[in-house]
Order: sequence, then C-alpha cells, then structure tokens
Amino acid sequence: MKVNNHLPVGVFDSGVGGLTVVKEIFKQLPNESLVYFGDTARVPYGNKSKEVVEKFSLQILNFLHKQRVKLIVVACNTASAYALETIRKNTKLPVLDVIEPGAKKAVEITCNDKIGIIGTEGTIKSQAYDKAVNRFADIRDVRIFSQACPLFVPLVEEGWADDSHKKIVKDVAKKYLTPLKRLKIDSLILGCTHYPWLENIIAEIMGKKVKLVSSAYETACSVKETLYGEGMLSELKTVQHKFFFSDAPEKAIMFGNKYSVKYMDATNVKKIDIEAYSPK
Amino acid sequence: MKVNNHLPVGVFDSGVGGLTVVKEIFKQLPNESLVYFGDTARVPYGNKSKEVVEKFSLQILNFLHKQRVKLIVVACNTASAYALETIRKNTKLPVLDVIEPGAKKAVEITCNDKIGIIGTEGTIKSQAYDKAVNRFADIRDVRIFSQACPLFVPLVEEGWADDSHKKIVKDVAKKYLTPLKRLKIDSLILGCTHYPWLENIIAEIMGKKVKLVSSAYETACSVKETLYGEGMLSELKTVQHKFFFSDAPEKAIMFGNKYSVKYMDATNVKKIDIEAYSPK
Repeated sequence: MKVNNHLPVGVFDSGVGGLTVVKEIFKQLPNESLVYFGDTARVPYGNKSKEVVEKFSLQILNFLHKQRVKLIVVACNTASAYALETIRKNTKLPVLDVIEPGAKKAVEITCNDKIGIIGTEGTIKSQAYDKAVNRFADIRDVRIFSQACPLFVPLVEEGWADDSHKKIVKDVAKKYLTPLKRLKIDSLILGCTHYPWLENIIAEIMGKKVKLVSSAYETACSVKETLYGEGMLSELKTVQHKFFFSDAPEKAIMFGNKYSVKYMDATNVKKIDIEAYSPK
Repeated sequence: MKVNNHLPVGVFDSGVGGLTVVKEIFKQLPNESLVYFGDTARVPYGNKSKEVVEKFSLQILNFLHKQRVKLIVVACNTASAYALETIRKNTKLPVLDVIEPGAKKAVEITCNDKIGIIGTEGTIKSQAYDKAVNRFADIRDVRIFSQACPLFVPLVEEGWADDSHKKIVKDVAKKYLTPLKRLKIDSLILGCTHYPWLENIIAEIMGKKVKLVSSAYETACSVKETLYGEGMLSELKTVQHKFFFSDAPEKAIMFGNKYSVKYMDATNVKKIDIEAYSPK
C-alpha cells in the first residue's frame, strides 16, 4: 500500500524508557514521522501481571489505530514479553517488539554460547528472551542465564544514572550482576529499554570480555529492515513527531531534554486519558 | 446511626504500603472489620500528578461505597496530599488521612520546633505536611524541612528492607537524610506508609536525638478516636476482613505474610478491575 508510506510509525512504552528506541529511530530513519505513547500514569509495567499488561496494551493499540500509524513498535520489554501475541491478534499492521532483535543479535555475537539476560521481573519471568534465543540458535546448544533487576528502572527514572550517584548505582548493579559474571557469559542482553542509560556502569562491572546488546539499537535496525522489506519507507522530507503521555507531560519533556531526545517540546507533547481507549 | 456500627472500616493505598496502617488498626481495634484496597495495577502514586491521583481516588471511593464501609482511611500519603478534598466532597462518610495525625504528633513532641518530613515526590511537592504542621502549631513558629525519597518505595517493594541489603539501603538513605540531619531537626515524620519498614535504618542514620513519627501508628489512633467520638465503634466479636487488589493478589499475600499482616490468605484476598468503578 504505497499510499500509506507517509503515515507515522507508532511506538509505545510503559513510560519514558522507550525513548531510547525513539532516539535510535531518529538516527537511523530521519525521514520517518513518529507517534510515541508513554503510559506514565501506570508506569512501571515490570512488576505487573500478564493479564493487566495485556489489557493496558490493547487500550494503547486502540489509541495508535486512531492515530493512523503504519507500523507498531512495542518498545517495552515487559509488554513485548506478555502482550505481543494479543497485540498481533488485534491488528492488521506489522508489529515489532524489542525482544526478537536483541535475542537475534546475541545469538550472532556469542562465541562461547553463554548468553546473559537482564530485565524487569515480568520480562524475566515470562522467559520470552529464552524462547527467542532458542529459536534463533536453532540446533546450537546456547545456554541462557537471566537475572531480574527491579531497581534499575526506578534508579533511571530518579535521574541517578549520572556521575554523582555512581557509587550507589554500582553497588546495586553489583548485587544483580555478580552472579551472572561468575557464570562466564560472553554477551549480555540489556532486556529493558531503560538500561542503555546504565550501560557504562554495567560495562565496568561485567568487564571488557562481555559484549552488551542494546535492545533499543537493535530494534531500530529491525524497524528499518521491515519498512524497507515491505516497501513502506517514507520519502517525505518534512517529518512530524507527536508524543503522548497518560500523565505529567512536562516531566517527560524534562526527561527527554536531559537525555537529548529531539523534538520533545511543549508543541509536540500532549497528555491523553488512555483508560478512555478500552476496545469495545 | 447505631445500626451501622457493624459495617467495616474502608482503607486504601496505592499498593501494599497501607498494610502498615492495617496492622496498627488490627492491634488497636480488634473488634473492627476491614475492607482494604491496594491499587497494585497502577502503583506507585508518588511520582504521578494531582489530576491522575484524584481520578484514581474517586474510582476507589466508588468501590468502597459499594462495599458499604462506615469510615474511609486514605492510607496513602500521596492520595492524602493530592485528593483528600475531592474525596471528602464526594462522600458523606467520615474520611481520615495519614497526614493530619502525623503532623499533629510531630508538633506535640518537637522541643526545638524543627521538624523534618520525608515522603514521595508527590507528597513533598504538595506541601500538605507543611500546611498541616502550621495549622497545629498555631502561633508557634515551627520550622519544617522536607526531603523526597523516591527510591524508598521501590526498595521496600523489592524486599530489600531486610538485613542482607542493609549496606545499600543505608547508602541510599544517607544521600537523602544527611542534609536533614545537618539542619538539626529533633523529630522526623515518616510521611509514607512504606517507610515504617525502613525505620531501623532511618533511626541509625538520624541518631538517638531525633524522634521518628510513624504515620501508620498515628493514623490508627486517629481511627480509634473518631469511631469512639462518633459512637461508631463495633462491638461485634466476629470480625470479617476483605482485601482487594487491582493486580497480582498472590504477590500481595506473600508480602503480607512476610511482614506478618494477619488474615491475608487466599480466602480473604481478591482481585478487582478498579477502572470499572469510574463514577458516572
């Protein structure tokens, strides 16, 4: 459907974490317009149940349909882990998640076939990465070691990913990562879109021999491949980006500016009532 | 209305924090039945806006009305700070909050008239404690020093209030509390119902000269006084307690058991869809 190539790409997350994916899409696909939704009224998703995350995701899908997007990126690992199937069942649009691209990359780069995965409690519990890694590994016997890091999201949201709080964040990270390090993994998937902001600290603890896989970067690559493959790339030179949040848009703007996410100003950022988008 | 004295007391919180208040009510009022609601699908409230917290609180009020409670305890400091007025406008029942009792106690016990307050971002921003303290202080010139501690709730919810994580929790607490200590306060209000679980660590940092005020304990006293004053005390010998959560009731049960909250078993704990209770 060539006619729809100028429509925006829809991206959603539980909050501001998915903006790491947005930043990568801006870099890799400068001609694409974007609609972003962050569920800041109900963040975080990581410690909530599958049933609740599915319900929230369907409301968001309905909202993105109304925004007339051409492709949907589930830029939240928890929603990808718990709700991907349900979302795909309820839309005709292509739906990309953040788990498959990260899992694929890890299988490509591991040499000793020992892959580590860190994420929220929900993402780890769902074993979605384990399944995806095994699918890409095919007949190879890849071993997977996973670890939930529930405090990483609050630490990032609190703005403690900066240098002045490095010691505490490193202590917390050591608690989570030391067991993984002992297992001699050679690649580690950052299975949460908040984690790229802690990448330096995680890299220091894991050491140079462990390669980190950012699901944000890999997902943007996957968006590019899909749009290209389906003949859906936009050729427009003027792009228009819209950001929606279910609460505190002004805080989201501050966060976006702090982490250099372009186009996030009061003109493009709006608040919506996501509960009003329950599917009939 | 003597006839209604056997009805339960309604207590609500953004999650499991309000269970500290429930524990105190069980101790002080063994003849009262209780209905508890914890909004675990949308926890935490502390970093959300007034508008959203008011909306959530009205849905919960509507739910508690349908449960036919005789009195409502807003056992969440953020909801007390942001939504108390709105709640009182929308019900004929007596509504108690967690802020007034703590503020009153602090004014009573301070000797140097320098009171510290710690709480979530929302509670601190609202200045609800400042206003309440000034109201009780009347003509006394009480000085108030406040500090938001956004990581305390995630640390408690992650179960890190135990001894094995003491060093990290103490480091985080020191970041928040050192500035308050330097100001030579002699009493400190724990302005969040999660914080009593970190009481030992907070006490160690603040030192023996600083008296801690738990809003959970003070609120239970206030419930007792109100029921007595209004002639609403129950004299029933068989009590019935019900606990409702908007997500993951099994996790709430585990949490309740870990922290010795009585009556929290599968028979008394249910999940409900709180979004369905929007007032017409």
